[in-house]
Amino acid sequence: MGKPIVYGPSYSVYTRAVLMALIEKKVAYDQVHIEMDNEEHHAPEHLKRHPFGMLPAFEHNGFMIYETVPILIYIDDAFPGTRLMPGDIHRRTRALQILSVINSYAYRPIIWGIFAPRIFPRPGRIVDEAAIAEAAKTGEHALRAIEELMMTPDPFLVGRQISPADLLLEPVVHYLEITAEGKAMLGRLPKIAAWHAAIQARPSVKETVPQ
Amino acid sequence: MGKPIVYGPSYSVYTRAVLMALIEKKVAYDQVHIEMDNEEHHAPEHLKRHPFGMLPAFEHNGFMIYETVPILIYIDDAFPGTRLMPGDIHRRTRALQILSVINSYAYRPIIWGIFAPRIFPRPGRIVDEAAIAEAAKTGEHALRAIEELMMTPDPFLVGRQISPADLLLEPVVHYLEITAEGKAMLGRLPKIAAWHAAIQARPSVKETVPQ
Repeated sequence: MGKPIVYGPSYSVYTRAVLMALIEKKVAYDQVHIEMDNEEHHAPEHLKRHPFGMLPAFEHNGFMIYETVPILIYIDDAFPGTRLMPGDIHRRTRALQILSVINSYAYRPIIWGIFAPRIFPRPGRIVDEAAIAEAAKTGEHALRAIEELMMTPDPFLVGRQISPADLLLEPVVHYLEITAEGKAMLGRLPKIAAWHAAIQARPSVKETVPQ
Repeated sequence: MGKPIVYGPSYSVYTRAVLMALIEKKVAYDQVHIEMDNEEHHAPEHLKRHPFGMLPAFEHNGFMIYETVPILIYIDDAFPGTRLMPGDIHRRTRALQILSVINSYAYRPIIWGIFAPRIFPRPGRIVDEAAIAEAAKTGEHALRAIEELMMTPDPFLVGRQISPADLLLEPVVHYLEITAEGKAMLGRLPKIAAWHAAIQARPSVKETVPQ
């Protein structure tokens, strides 16, 4: 069995979740950096891997996968080691719901609505404070829904083991926390704040955290 | 074990996928109609079931689930009968990818970009033909990606058994086909057109098809 290949940059939220999954499963992998700044993810070569030009794409023994949830579940099923997806049906359902909430409701406002304009404001453009405030409201609502789905008092989101939900939420909250809005928001979300602080010691987090 | 309850109207794409899954698994269920026309899905009572006001929500023995992919996978795992999710890792991955492509790239342009303005044009408003043409282009790109993910020559999307991917794609293509854009598009997508024609004989399709 060949080493899997991850196509994407480590600073991408979704790429980082996949890298963390491989580290958690102790799978040796290769990574091909795809640069977003020069639109490499929209170039024909990457569109062959991911027809919507998103990141990451994944390859294992010639089998190509795009979309992060299918990649995470494939990694869990294809490689030996700790199971990431809970065996218990209720915990597994909560993990899948949290992944869906991140994809459908949390990622866009938090990353593109708060993090991007705050940390990478466009030169010469006035920051749209009303849009950021609206994204903060939407993003907080989504994170509050995730708190409701958490299986507390377990240390991880849905149990005593790390799950794909933890792996995708970590890179989102990592970027959120850098912003003033995010710091304030996490002050109002004690369960996610405590979870996020505790997970920082995890090797898969430390080895992949963007500099 | 009590009967599960589906909260949603049969005309909703996502609700219909869940109803079809229950019929495929031969599970008796109750359905609580939630009306979108009078904003019942945004009323406090439904927001307790689904904090983002989407449809459907699902309840089984007091366990509440929202988001359709987690609901479909829960139904498959919780009830006996035919397995909907393929046992083979490659087919399972393709099913999860198709579900993700529908959610992230196909549903919005096809349902809200083509079907809704064509079939339910807003009274007194001019139909935005450029927006519909753009949605048709985006929607066709997504369906073409799904054709690439299909495991032909199998009769269903990813094999010889119906899968959650088939259950979610059917209601989307059903509405698309009603429109002139959809008819033309399906003429250029022979694999999906053949799959869609063949699946019409399925009892779960016939019993749930909107009138």
